[in-house]
Parts: sequence; C-alpha cells; structure tokens
Amino acid sequence: MITSLSNPRMVEIRKLLDAKHRKQSGLFLAEGLKAVGQALDSQADLKTVVYADSELISGYGREVLDAFRQKNNVEIIEVSAEVFNSLARKDKPQGIAAVIRQQWVELQNLSTARSGIFVAVDSIQNPGNLGTIMRTCDAVGASGLILLNNSTDPYDPVSVKASMGSVFTVPLVKSDSAKFLDWAKTNSLPIIGTSDKAQQSCFTFDYPDPCLILMGSEREGLPTTLISAAADMVSIPMEGTADSLNISVATGIILYQTYLSHKGKN
Amino acid sequence: MITSLSNPRMVEIRKLLDAKHRKQSGLFLAEGLKAVGQALDSQADLKTVVYADSELISGYGREVLDAFRQKNNVEIIEVSAEVFNSLARKDKPQGIAAVIRQQWVELQNLSTARSGIFVAVDSIQNPGNLGTIMRTCDAVGASGLILLNNSTDPYDPVSVKASMGSVFTVPLVKSDSAKFLDWAKTNSLPIIGTSDKAQQSCFTFDYPDPCLILMGSEREGLPTTLISAAADMVSIPMEGTADSLNISVATGIILYQTYLSHKGKN
Repeated sequence: MITSLSNPRMVEIRKLLDAKHRKQSGLFLAEGLKAVGQALDSQADLKTVVYADSELISGYGREVLDAFRQKNNVEIIEVSAEVFNSLARKDKPQGIAAVIRQQWVELQNLSTARSGIFVAVDSIQNPGNLGTIMRTCDAVGASGLILLNNSTDPYDPVSVKASMGSVFTVPLVKSDSAKFLDWAKTNSLPIIGTSDKAQQSCFTFDYPDPCLILMGSEREGLPTTLISAAADMVSIPMEGTADSLNISVATGIILYQTYLSHKGKN
Repeated sequence: MITSLSNPRMVEIRKLLDAKHRKQSGLFLAEGLKAVGQALDSQADLKTVVYADSELISGYGREVLDAFRQKNNVEIIEVSAEVFNSLARKDKPQGIAAVIRQQWVELQNLSTARSGIFVAVDSIQNPGNLGTIMRTCDAVGASGLILLNNSTDPYDPVSVKASMGSVFTVPLVKSDSAKFLDWAKTNSLPIIGTSDKAQQSCFTFDYPDPCLILMGSEREGLPTTLISAAADMVSIPMEGTADSLNISVATGIILYQTYLSHKGKN
C-alpha cells in the first residue's frame, strides 16, 4: 500500500489533473464508482486502478475492483485514504479511480452507425458544460461530438464527472474549422447552426437526416466562417430578461428536437 | 480604501459565502459585472457595493458603479485587489460585488401574471444546476420556482453566477411537500411530475395551462408522496447507455415543451 503523497507513481498520476500532462501522455484520470464502472463496461483502455480500501465502502465498488483483478493487463495500486484524496476532487471521494487511455476518433472515421445526429461545439470553455453535453449526446444516440478550435478538454476531471460515463461511449473528435468544413462538405452533411438571432425556431424546423448540429460558445456565439457554411440557422425562442440559455441546456433542447424530427415525431 | 483582509466589515461580507450566514442574515453576495448590473436593473434591494478600482477595467463596470453612486442608500466600499479577491471565486474576478437582500416569495403570493408555468424542484443538490434552472425559468417566463424540502440555496455564489442574473427576476419560494401539495390543491393547479419510468413522453403530452412542472433529484427521483399527488407523469425518451440526463438539461427540455404547448405550437 502506498502511503506517501510524494510516491513517484502517485506524483505521475496526479499530473493527469493538468491539461498539459493529459495531452502529453494521452491518458486521463476517471474517479468515482460511476466513471470507473462505466469504463469497465465500455471496454475502455484502462491502464491502472488506484483504490483506498477504507474509502471503498459499497459492494458495487468491490465488485468493480474484483473484475479488474481478473484482468491480466491492469495495474492495481492500493493507497492510503490520504493519498487517494490527493488524486480526488474534494467532495465525497469514493475510493476508486482509474488511469485510462484517451480515445479520440478521426473525423473521417465517424459514421452514421448510431444515428444521423452529429454534434459540433465551437470553443466551448466550461468542462462541466462539455461533460453535460456528452451525456445528452449519449441520450439521443449521437454519432459523434466534434470539438472545434480551442474547446476545453473532455478528459478534464470535471468534464469526465459531468458526463456520467458518456465520455466512454460518445465518439469524440478534435478538429479546426477548416478541416471540419471540408469533411462536412465532402460528406454532404448539412450543418444546422444555432444563434439567438436566427429567424427560424428550432421547434418548427425539419432537421435533415443525417445532419450536424453546430453550437457556438455562450459568450461569443458562432464565428462568421462557420455561420456562412451552415445550411440553416435556428434559434430557441425566449421570454423574460434572459438573453441566453446555458450552453448545455440549449444543446439539449436542440438535440432532442433533432432526435424527434428524425423519428418523425415533431 | 480597505487593504486589510481582516477588516471587520470584510470578514462580515466574506461570511456570506457560507450558507449558514446567508440564512441568518437574509443577505447574499452577488459577484461580477453581469450579476451586479442585473441587480441594478431589477431593482434588487442592494445594501453594499464592494469594488477594487484596479480590477474594474470595463467601461460598463464604471457605469454600474456610477449608477450606484447616484443612490443615497447604497454603501460603497473601495478595497484593494487582494481584499476583493478574498470575496471572489477564483476565476477572473471582475472587481465588483454587491451585498443584496434575499427576496423570497410566499407560496400564496405566486400568481399567473407572467405565464401559466410553475416549476418545483425536490431536493436538488447542485447549486450550479439550480442556477441554470433559474436561467431557463426566466427564458420561458415561468411564474415561480418552488424549492422543495432540502434543496440547495439559490443564493449560493455558484447558483447566483449560473443564473446569469435570473436570480433577481424569477420568483423564488421555499416550501415543504405538505404545504406545497396543499397550495397546489387549493389552487387546482395540476402537477406534472417527471420520471424516467413514466410511459407518457414529455414530447407528446398536452400540458394544462396553468400547470406545475415537478422535477425530482437526479439521484433519487421524486418521492412517492409527490408522485401520487401528480395529475400526470412524463418522461424524456433516451437511447444509448445514458440512464439519465443532467437535471438542468431535463428541466430545460420539459419547460420548453410546456412553453410550446401553452403557445399552441407543439
């Protein structure tokens, strides 16, 4: 059992809390029962499990740990509660975490195998919102989530947690605007952009199947290069003094309209 | 200018970051240009403005500060950047914050003046989600948001920030289940509950006008006492491995369906 906070292996794992080290290593840290259990179920490329026996109190937690013990190629490290807490975010650590290989998909490898819904977000900043969007992408069976330009890292611990396991199931792609537009054009994939200034309501629009839903950042909206490439622009009507919705709420509303439209139900 | 972190006035204001002191004092702290500007616009009962000149860099920030200087009954305190940062959450403080009186509405004072949409959330735990829900309530013009049982504090700094000013515009009510059910019954207000087990899709349901949308907590769902009082239960259909949506996304989807139904558009 590792009891020292400065144990080199722990120092290395703790570095995965930093975006820079996640990028360099291609690894990330998933913490908590839900995330580690989902990693097991989804055949994620799991390298290391770290656990603190005193904190791993649920029966499910022990089952997950036992399942990893059956595997040959997973390193299992027992640590003290104090060492575990140094890896965990503050609130209620559940005594289990895993180091997992990031799984990026190339644009050209996206397919409509799951559905005709593709999603792209431009320059999204908040990892909690990104995680929540992944979760909704999973719920509507989206075929891919494309992170454009300087979007935040889906493997940030906050994003991983908010995704509630969807980080393992939604195909994730990184791209810049030029490659993205080229890919959409080559595949004749109509881009449906969103803007609070668009005349067309997202609730009465007939979403082509397949299509690509493109969301801008809350603060900036979509850049003109992306707007001008959109086949259509839609908006969410609003009352009151609110001048916008939270980006994950707006994305949720529009993805469900797309989902319903594709099912012929709206 | 206050430059000492231990200045008694600052210590007192800093206490508003704790739920206990917010409850005792009936005050809260709103931080950042958006929140303070919206407090000004919405005639909130503002007691004190705290600002750090070196951090207040935008023209809009100076306009807001000048507007408060015109008022007789607002205390204005200049502090050093260091003192200001001790009040602020970590990321990019904007040099202005305000101490404001909480504005709770009594159940019996809620009316349909804005719309026939009322919202109640049971035991919601995450203040960011609660703030995001307030923002959506504002966007659909909801007539009130009722926080049932041990729901988190809408005046938590995280909730205030996520509400993007809607904390000042959405009528907020605290209640327990018994009083709430009594009020709904007295006012013949049909309760539409939400559950992932409900047969009725939220997208095909015809929402009565007025009605009350009742959301359970993400982890626990709604307690049976509340479910049995619901006129109808609706669910959001889901694909994939996701077993639920984020509570603020789910609320956003259902509130917009209610809004459309009331406008005769779905």
